[in-house]
Amino acid sequence: MLIEKKVKGFVEETASKSPAPGGGSVSALAGSMGAALISMVGNLTIGKKAYESLDDDKKVKIDENFEKVQKLITKLNELVDEDTNAFDSVMQAFKMPKDTEEQKNKRSQAIQKGFKKALEVPLDTANQCLNVLKLQKVFAEYGNKNAITDVGVGALMAYSGLEGALFNVKINLGSIKDKEYVEKIDSECKEIMNEGKKLKEEVLELVYSDLG
Amino acid sequence: MLIEKKVKGFVEETASKSPAPGGGSVSALAGSMGAALISMVGNLTIGKKAYESLDDDKKVKIDENFEKVQKLITKLNELVDEDTNAFDSVMQAFKMPKDTEEQKNKRSQAIQKGFKKALEVPLDTANQCLNVLKLQKVFAEYGNKNAITDVGVGALMAYSGLEGALFNVKINLGSIKDKEYVEKIDSECKEIMNEGKKLKEEVLELVYSDLG
Repeated sequence: MLIEKKVKGFVEETASKSPAPGGGSVSALAGSMGAALISMVGNLTIGKKAYESLDDDKKVKIDENFEKVQKLITKLNELVDEDTNAFDSVMQAFKMPKDTEEQKNKRSQAIQKGFKKALEVPLDTANQCLNVLKLQKVFAEYGNKNAITDVGVGALMAYSGLEGALFNVKINLGSIKDKEYVEKIDSECKEIMNEGKKLKEEVLELVYSDLG
Repeated sequence: MLIEKKVKGFVEETASKSPAPGGGSVSALAGSMGAALISMVGNLTIGKKAYESLDDDKKVKIDENFEKVQKLITKLNELVDEDTNAFDSVMQAFKMPKDTEEQKNKRSQAIQKGFKKALEVPLDTANQCLNVLKLQKVFAEYGNKNAITDVGVGALMAYSGLEGALFNVKINLGSIKDKEYVEKIDSECKEIMNEGKKLKEEVLELVYSDLG
């Protein structure tokens, strides 16, 4: 498992000529690191002076988001490995026999199914990165101000994970013939991208305004 | 050393209440992963069909950049660990005695020196991330087109590493009283940021145009 490798080994294996891990796994890891930074800021906030002076509804919001971010770390760590296997079903389908008309049809259907499966992993990564960005704003607003740059780096990571994962959705989408499916996924991608970009910009605005 | 930890352990330690590793180390790792993706694309390009059909000057450019990126990976991996120690000299200075006027002056000078040292590590990270971005365009233009999304993710990572590292320069710069130094570093940061943003946008434009 990639996630069990040493950091240095993960970087080395990315740099090597083997196509996995590639941009998909790196995007999921960026999302996970973004979530981890939010968890750290939560740890440096909850129970501290700035937190105690907050209204109860804001405390609850921080507590809830802190809980959610732990689940997102676990999920994104899983996606680091899932992404590397995502393309397997496409590769398997390409190896199917294509001697008869029936075989050709079967193979073509399996390839199409494979591409849909392959893009659903990075689509999940993009959605989870969006979830990380949704949690970040509350930490940018009410978190420990000494850790504001960590919130900023977290937002950059989660957003890059989101946009990077969407590249991988888009490249697989190009091979899919089912127009209705393509349109549906394409519009989902646009929504994720727009919402993610807006959230990242809102968080970074708070960071830059704090940095002065 | 952080770089010798398991990926999962690095994420866990980031997420923990200990302030290190924080956004600085994560930024350096993002730069390193961006460089690693370029190395992978280089490996999937050099000696392949698309490469053989290139003019000699472009082949040379790819070969040179491939060599440079290996050094950048090593350097950025080192910065992952250096960043965690960067703040040590500030912490040490704060612990100095401050009973007499002379001690106060000495302590204050040591703190100022510490902050300068502390910001030079993320400034180095930002410069190395900029170097990664400088190498990426040639791979976006002439690299293996099957790996174009990896070039895109690489550019996102290197750029996020750059902007994230600059947050950490800026927060330390706020504590420095030497106006001339502050102005010099501030203008260097602006240059790095502008050049980095321009390069990232140029690379992503090529990626999106290939993705159609």
